[in-house]
Amino acid sequence: MPETTDPAVHVLLPWNGLDERHGPWPSNVRVHVWDGHTPEDELPADALESTGLWVMPYAVPGAERLLPRLPAVRAVQSLSAGVEKLLPVMPEGAKLYNGRGLHDASTAEHALGLILAAQRDLPRWVADQQAGRWEPHFTRSLAGSRVAVIGYGSIGEALERRLLACEAEVVRVARRSRPEEDVHPVTALPDLLPEVDIVVLVLPETPATSGMFGADELAALPDGALVVNVGRGRTLETGALLEEVRRGRLRAALDVTDPEPLPGDHPLRGQPGVLITPHVAGGSATFRPRAERLVVEQVRRYAAGEPLVNAFPRP
Amino acid sequence: MPETTDPAVHVLLPWNGLDERHGPWPSNVRVHVWDGHTPEDELPADALESTGLWVMPYAVPGAERLLPRLPAVRAVQSLSAGVEKLLPVMPEGAKLYNGRGLHDASTAEHALGLILAAQRDLPRWVADQQAGRWEPHFTRSLAGSRVAVIGYGSIGEALERRLLACEAEVVRVARRSRPEEDVHPVTALPDLLPEVDIVVLVLPETPATSGMFGADELAALPDGALVVNVGRGRTLETGALLEEVRRGRLRAALDVTDPEPLPGDHPLRGQPGVLITPHVAGGSATFRPRAERLVVEQVRRYAAGEPLVNAFPRP
Ligand SMILES: NC(=O)c1ccc[n+]([C@@H]2O[C@H](COP(=O)([O-])OP(=O)(O)OC[C@H]3O[C@@H](n4cnc5c(N)ncnc54)[C@H](OP(=O)(O)O)[C@@H]3O)[C@@H](O)[C@H]2O)c1
Ligand SMILES: NC(=O)c1ccc[n+]([C@@H]2O[C@H](COP(=O)([O-])OP(=O)(O)OC[C@H]3O[C@@H](n4cnc5c(N)ncnc54)[C@H](OP(=O)(O)O)[C@@H]3O)[C@@H](O)[C@H]2O)c1
Repeated sequence: MPETTDPAVHVLLPWNGLDERHGPWPSNVRVHVWDGHTPEDELPADALESTGLWVMPYAVPGAERLLPRLPAVRAVQSLSAGVEKLLPVMPEGAKLYNGRGLHDASTAEHALGLILAAQRDLPRWVADQQAGRWEPHFTRSLAGSRVAVIGYGSIGEALERRLLACEAEVVRVARRSRPEEDVHPVTALPDLLPEVDIVVLVLPETPATSGMFGADELAALPDGALVVNVGRGRTLETGALLEEVRRGRLRAALDVTDPEPLPGDHPLRGQPGVLITPHVAGGSATFRPRAERLVVEQVRRYAAGEPLVNAFPRP
Repeated sequence: MPETTDPAVHVLLPWNGLDERHGPWPSNVRVHVWDGHTPEDELPADALESTGLWVMPYAVPGAERLLPRLPAVRAVQSLSAGVEKLLPVMPEGAKLYNGRGLHDASTAEHALGLILAAQRDLPRWVADQQAGRWEPHFTRSLAGSRVAVIGYGSIGEALERRLLACEAEVVRVARRSRPEEDVHPVTALPDLLPEVDIVVLVLPETPATSGMFGADELAALPDGALVVNVGRGRTLETGALLEEVRRGRLRAALDVTDPEPLPGDHPLRGQPGVLITPHVAGGSATFRPRAERLVVEQVRRYAAGEPLVNAFPRP
């Protein structure tokens, strides 16, 4: 059968060369590439006119400006997990898909790294290394600690597997109670917080989660507890946290902040017992192979007329 | 039965109050306490004369000077794992016991922390936090990496459980091949090293392990590989490592060094891609409860005339 009789399916991807690593594309697929940085006017006319499935460049702010220029688009795949902000700009007749699961290993691993760094005083050792000191002391540990995972979803489960292997105890917290899985509802926090050594926030940003962890929740934690945030900065009240760490009562390890980026002169930066990373939990080498496998699968499904995975919001 | 008819058993412990946490001592046990810091002349005469089981203070250099003053000692319990240096000073008729297993969780967890810190660029973020920068970049990851654990013993197994939960692949290496457990012999290193992303040394210091990981082994590693040492400093050749990290070809994360303490002006300290902690892997909060449980068990066994656990060398 000559190729030209295929109903051609145009897809616009952020990367070249996926077929070299994952096998040839279905014969009816026409691949175009846009990395989000090249001026979009340089895209061939048929890429703009005919793209039915668009895989957005990852972590390129403003890439959604291309949407009004894709009249044939039916499926928009973001590689992020939090895609709430794209819903209002989606064109009529196009469906949104997210990167649920792609960031689990990377984000859970970074959360674990933050916890271990805080418990085992790594920032102190980094400073001592440079200052020429060799002054060992006993530290806290993760083994034997009780950790509340607040937002026990996809990333929370991946984190739990790592925490259990580290001989920590995990307390699962989500929106709704799921007693059969031992998941506590957020309403149980006042009873749970006084008994934990570490809390990890892995919450999406929604009207309900904004400022969810504030002065009352922080006050309920025992002295010396560690507050970790790898979800969204605004779910944790910065001002209330700052008060607690200033007094030396709590410690914190934050990959996301409010505001974000955290200004260069923000008082959180200089606090002892506070460790900050610039929203890098999801962005590590393990993301790319997972993302490529998802893209290849979505293109295959799209070309075959099958429903794509990872619809957002979840059906 | 009046207590005085019991054959009294004198034990000298580093800590007070174990009976409050673990239940009363057997009725024939007389407990004395020496923390390794109080002058030993202040110990009561019967403690010195009658001690049969001595539990040495943990990580107190020179504590073994008490040995010649304990004429009745039959069992010496160290809470360290590496006790080779005590063998030559053991009195006639006394047996040595070590802290095998007490440090596994703590040491494995610290090794994991070092690996995650190195893979996820934590030292860079710590510097950026202080310098007021917010410049995210993609990092390496542990997930998807291949890690060789060289010295697949008690700590190595504890580390492996943590690495597998982090979705890394583990290559087990020990003195002797144990094919049924997929353990490779050290003689296979030339074939294994070119294929790994990370090597972790967890070796005791013996004549055979001194300088075992030198220029040839380092040269066999691929560009960018990470070398971790949580065993003993002298098993890794410092000079050869320094050459590789100076050229930016390898990275390193070391809890033990040669020499140790590492001098304040040692060139390793200032190398980018090198992370150093001052021999603190074994010393964290999770050690104490485990050590107390071992001490209580050994005292019970000693008082009952049963053989103690953790004999060194292993029978
Ligand atoms: N730092 C980074 O680089 C990075 C990377 C990836 C993702 N993230 C953030 O992490 C978030 C979580 O990702 P995920 O993939 O784990 O999402 P997920 O699977 O949807 O899980 C979200 C969890 O949050 C809980 N939750 C939602 N609203 C809540 C509320 N009002 N009160 C209490 N719990 C609530 C959910 O509870 P139910 O189970 O009861 O619904 C669920 O357990 C993302 O939304 C994203 O913002 C950050
Ligand atoms: N950094 C710290 O704070 C810290 C804390 C605790 C311990 N340590 C160090 O960690 C070491 C390991 O502790 P562990 O409890 O895991 O000991 P272990 O259970 O005895 O394991 C030692 C491992 O090293 C292997 N090994 C010994 N000699 C070797 C050789 N010549 N070539 C290759 N492999 C060799 C053994 O191989 P086989 O199985 O074939 O015998 C075994 O797999 C201790 O000796 C101590 O020095 C450091």
